[in-house]
Amino acid sequence: MIYLDNNATTQVAPEVLNEMLPFWRDHFANPSSPYTFARRSALAVARAREQVAEELGAEPAQVTFTSGGSESINSAFYAATHLQPERKQVVISTVEHAATLACADRLEQAGYRVVRVPVDSTGQLDRDLYNQALTADTALVSLMAANNETGVRFPIEELAAAAEDKGILFHCDATQMLGKESFRVDVPGISWVSISAHKLHGPKGVGASIVRQPDMKAALIVGGDQEHSRRAGTENVAGIVGFGAAISLIPAALPVMNEQIRNLRDYFEREIQEKLPAARIIGMESPRLPNTSFFCIPGIPSEILIARLDMAGVCCSAGSACASGATEPSHVLRAMKIPDEIAIGAVRISLSRYTKDAEVQSCVAALVAATNQGA
Amino acid sequence: MIYLDNNATTQVAPEVLNEMLPFWRDHFANPSSPYTFARRSALAVARAREQVAEELGAEPAQVTFTSGGSESINSAFYAATHLQPERKQVVISTVEHAATLACADRLEQAGYRVVRVPVDSTGQLDRDLYNQALTADTALVSLMAANNETGVRFPIEELAAAAEDKGILFHCDATQMLGKESFRVDVPGISWVSISAHKLHGPKGVGASIVRQPDMKAALIVGGDQEHSRRAGTENVAGIVGFGAAISLIPAALPVMNEQIRNLRDYFEREIQEKLPAARIIGMESPRLPNTSFFCIPGIPSEILIARLDMAGVCCSAGSACASGATEPSHVLRAMKIPDEIAIGAVRISLSRYTKDAEVQSCVAALVAATNQGA
Repeated sequence: MIYLDNNATTQVAPEVLNEMLPFWRDHFANPSSPYTFARRSALAVARAREQVAEELGAEPAQVTFTSGGSESINSAFYAATHLQPERKQVVISTVEHAATLACADRLEQAGYRVVRVPVDSTGQLDRDLYNQALTADTALVSLMAANNETGVRFPIEELAAAAEDKGILFHCDATQMLGKESFRVDVPGISWVSISAHKLHGPKGVGASIVRQPDMKAALIVGGDQEHSRRAGTENVAGIVGFGAAISLIPAALPVMNEQIRNLRDYFEREIQEKLPAARIIGMESPRLPNTSFFCIPGIPSEILIARLDMAGVCCSAGSACASGATEPSHVLRAMKIPDEIAIGAVRISLSRYTKDAEVQSCVAALVAATNQGA
Repeated sequence: MIYLDNNATTQVAPEVLNEMLPFWRDHFANPSSPYTFARRSALAVARAREQVAEELGAEPAQVTFTSGGSESINSAFYAATHLQPERKQVVISTVEHAATLACADRLEQAGYRVVRVPVDSTGQLDRDLYNQALTADTALVSLMAANNETGVRFPIEELAAAAEDKGILFHCDATQMLGKESFRVDVPGISWVSISAHKLHGPKGVGASIVRQPDMKAALIVGGDQEHSRRAGTENVAGIVGFGAAISLIPAALPVMNEQIRNLRDYFEREIQEKLPAARIIGMESPRLPNTSFFCIPGIPSEILIARLDMAGVCCSAGSACASGATEPSHVLRAMKIPDEIAIGAVRISLSRYTKDAEVQSCVAALVAATNQGA
């Protein structure tokens, strides 16, 4: 089995699982409990908070653990709109994650104006339309640091600075970025950052909001006073410990990602271009995550390609996992105005720092064979 | 170490952890992914959904996995109020969990009327005031099946039937009930049930909403179409598997809870009454969970008692974990009109099915010694 779908989810790293294990059976206390036994749980959560803060350039008190990226994104929209009820517009891009799109849709149904700033065929945001969208009525800008399908990066520092100039809260969905390229939250203008553990060899079911704007206190999930009253519910101690452990592995992983894995992805794309000259690689003109290759084989529906690769033992995606099962081009390809006849054959491979050269070579061979079988 | 705080959280059962383990490092795929490798994840989630449904008397499609009880409770309030925007009242009791109280407070701030039905000194709901509160303007009744501090049970079947007679949605917080006494959701009038894994020897960070009223579709966390579009976000596969496994252990656990553990709790209370005659046991006149004893030692602040018990290796609570750290009587004791001078010395012990006789005997000895040291 060759797993090349690491933008969908990743294997939990062995070091991470080892750190989590004691917190189910042994140190299982509720961190809020008042006895000595519970201190181990509370300290473990505090340590993970420091690990996240240190890697991201945040203060520990800015780190709110959640159940994952989707909850963090939903929370950012909730906090921004409840903090500023008089502002009735939000600004996103057309290529955001399903959670961001759905939060914007929900606000639209509630009477908000939603500006969905388009991207060009290379995946880059239309800066003129973005700047025009930054009005005094804007409660939140929400943009991803890197796209889950194409890997294309947005220039978050510049985009956040532009929002700050207009006094607008800026949410960055860094779910796909973190662990793949250097990323820090201590950037002027960034109010809130959403991240997720399972995209970086941590466990599923845990994420975090880095809340840099102290006014954004409104909690989506209310109840107990856990997480500085920003997120109620008994802490997922083992999951949080695993998230901290996974994040602490990033400094050693980044050079691997940005040298070996980037080279391996580039090798894959050279091979595809040479052996499948009709293939079109999406977003390669833009700054891109080092692990992601999103390409289209014209004329063959991606479900067929994915199924043939699956038969050959290669796991990869036709787009984001959330959108899989759908037979029409992903919203990202539509937004990039890739013609349907090309977009219908879109396949994403996404490597991890553990991906081996031989796995990518096998994927090339399987893809060539799958393509040569025809539609 | 003697752990007698199982209403705060529980140790993950060894069988549960064994079932979870393969889903971090081996079967780690995203259940939404389109290849064979992901089918194992999807099937594991489906099996857990069936385990939950079977034990609770629900349909699998009614089970929505969440990150825990607090999220489920928040979701019930969100769904009920968004489904019926014209109804501007919610009904709760004065002894609900912090999540329910906070959801009601938030609605009150948004202009809702909140009826907080009182309880008497035995913990039982005032039925006249409850019935009066059931108006055509009521969007939701939210009541707990059993109280986390006292263990006192509400007659949920009758209360749900009364709400149904008036056409009112009824949410039952069964977080403390499930796994301790027989509990099924297929009761006329129950619209939504919230449950949590970590209260019944499953992992922290996973819970469920059993949504019996099919109209209550509005999702608190929107995005991908996971969980029948009722709860977005990549599924916490290992956690969900653990929840299913923990629930599948309930049928064998219930007789232990309701015979050995009930006897052990009753033994504890007889000993306390004999050896500490000033002690007052709270809620013992009412139907109560078999594992819970909540009592007051007049004249000694509970923090002092808890600290002395902690020194003796006994872990127990001064109330709900969420409220710990506070020096004033819990909202439950206040609601039961227990005088402050008695309530200030409140201690809760909560047994699990794994609790040994000798542990309770040691607790009695430690408690007698702690009391005899004086204030």
